[in-house]
Amino acid sequence: MVEGIFTGCQVPDEQAGLIADHLVQANLRGVDSHGVSRVGVYVDRIEQSLVSARTALETVHETPVSALVDGGNGSGIVVAERAMRLAVSKALDAGVGLVSARGSNHCGMLAYYTAMAARAGLIGFAVTSAPPTMAPWGARTPFFGTNPLSYAIPMAERDDIVFDMATSQVARGKIILAAKEGRNIPVGWALTTDGQQTEDADAALDGVMLPLGGPKGSGLALLVETLSSALSAAPFGPHIPPLYHNPDHTQQLGHFFMALRPDLFRSPSEFAATMTQLAGEITALPALPGHDRVYLPGEIEARTARDRVEHGIPISQEVRDELIRLSGRLDAATGNSR
Amino acid sequence: MVEGIFTGCQVPDEQAGLIADHLVQANLRGVDSHGVSRVGVYVDRIEQSLVSARTALETVHETPVSALVDGGNGSGIVVAERAMRLAVSKALDAGVGLVSARGSNHCGMLAYYTAMAARAGLIGFAVTSAPPTMAPWGARTPFFGTNPLSYAIPMAERDDIVFDMATSQVARGKIILAAKEGRNIPVGWALTTDGQQTEDADAALDGVMLPLGGPKGSGLALLVETLSSALSAAPFGPHIPPLYHNPDHTQQLGHFFMALRPDLFRSPSEFAATMTQLAGEITALPALPGHDRVYLPGEIEARTARDRVEHGIPISQEVRDELIRLSGRLDAATGNSR
Repeated sequence: MVEGIFTGCQVPDEQAGLIADHLVQANLRGVDSHGVSRVGVYVDRIEQSLVSARTALETVHETPVSALVDGGNGSGIVVAERAMRLAVSKALDAGVGLVSARGSNHCGMLAYYTAMAARAGLIGFAVTSAPPTMAPWGARTPFFGTNPLSYAIPMAERDDIVFDMATSQVARGKIILAAKEGRNIPVGWALTTDGQQTEDADAALDGVMLPLGGPKGSGLALLVETLSSALSAAPFGPHIPPLYHNPDHTQQLGHFFMALRPDLFRSPSEFAATMTQLAGEITALPALPGHDRVYLPGEIEARTARDRVEHGIPISQEVRDELIRLSGRLDAATGNSR
Repeated sequence: MVEGIFTGCQVPDEQAGLIADHLVQANLRGVDSHGVSRVGVYVDRIEQSLVSARTALETVHETPVSALVDGGNGSGIVVAERAMRLAVSKALDAGVGLVSARGSNHCGMLAYYTAMAARAGLIGFAVTSAPPTMAPWGARTPFFGTNPLSYAIPMAERDDIVFDMATSQVARGKIILAAKEGRNIPVGWALTTDGQQTEDADAALDGVMLPLGGPKGSGLALLVETLSSALSAAPFGPHIPPLYHNPDHTQQLGHFFMALRPDLFRSPSEFAATMTQLAGEITALPALPGHDRVYLPGEIEARTARDRVEHGIPISQEVRDELIRLSGRLDAATGNSR
């Protein structure tokens, strides 16, 4: 159904399949904020010609270990997948691959791309800039996006380690949820439009997000902005137009991907044995009250995915209605009833 | 004086000069926890033959973009400087250089090494593992060290951006200071030995540090551990012996360094212009109450260094006495009165 909606917008079959796979994978992993709830805004922007329906990457500059690619304002998920595929291919040949992408759009969940590298036996990294919602440390107005970063490490005897975090104190979704439920938020998550600390979730949503741990998250966000935007010549910080409620401007986002071969340093079997031991020791540590045991990054998401494959993905009525409406309009237009 | 203390311990002149330069640079930048207050423990461990006086790096495995080096249990500062120098050299030739080091020791302030890359016009990264003091997210016993990470970005028209953070919620030094001054600490910084949240600084020092933002800092620490220890075959987590009060065991620490050429992606002048604009816009943002303006990572440290070059470095009486005592004993032995 999701794939059919995108082919109904003139997205080529294979690219529509990739976008659908990405969004469903996000839901399976429990990252519902980056799942099929995004179909609506992606379709809107394609139909308004603010995102190209057909994504064609241009390689602007290339070396054996690197590439700068331009996504031609195509779908962010397609641009990012192609860029990481290129980084993986270069790493398999040269040991390491670094790919900077511009002319892209919202690329969903970074974990999708770093997990690709891990499946190829590589350590993967990915970062992306995003529209401004977060103040640098010491500032009271937005500049950075939530500027997430992700890495993945291949594991021989258990799920690959897959880590994905925003550099903000909390995900914006937690504030949205608190606002919906009429709850206060802790001081330190966000500021009001006047730059005041606030416990009021509604005031926080109108205001500005704060970086993780003050100068630490702010410095990480600056690194993300530099790698994603400055290296690729994509717009940075306040020059990035919003994803939502923006009928006029393309986003032209920048991302950065890296993959590296562990056997640059050690034999694959030795590295795998060490990682198995390290993971085993961490997960066997005595747990804090309220934790049933210690989990590795991505372990809970992988468990959720297995559970949801078996029992289905819970989708809100609102998202369900939207998908049915879009499918009726677009899927029918292509004669595609999936 | 510091250089003479190390030559008095049979450290070769050039290596003693490097160690002294590093420690003094840390003090100049205001990072006094990594400055000359470390001379005592470094000397102790050299004199106890737990650190080799003469550091000779062996290149275990090498490609055009990477190297695994073994420091032969030499001085961490010398091993790390050589490793980053190699990463820089590879990056200048091949675009990117990744160097994993093992057989090392406490290497001081990571910012020293990433700043080397920035001075060469490169983006630099450095991470190191450390003796266990921090619990992974969800655990109540130490496993990770404070596992710091640093990056630096070359700037054309202002001080290079130099960022250096521990992945723990706060630096251990802040808890030590609170304990000395009889102050409480905020909940969330540390746990007691029983795994209970605590506001008691003394109980926190006996207990375990918590990672920055829970799962986020914990995931970053795991990445640091993987790059520093697992890739290099150095001991990890709880297998790393302590630096202090440890007369029996060598540390054999692992570190990881990376340098990359921005002109893999854009011309140096274009990248420099974007970074100048980005830095200018961030530092011009309206500041929060209590902040005179918004600073970039490393900017306050660079200002402190200029101030301390002019007005001198404040050294505690305790550290001063120790340096005079060591200098009297060791510097005289070499006939070196610097």
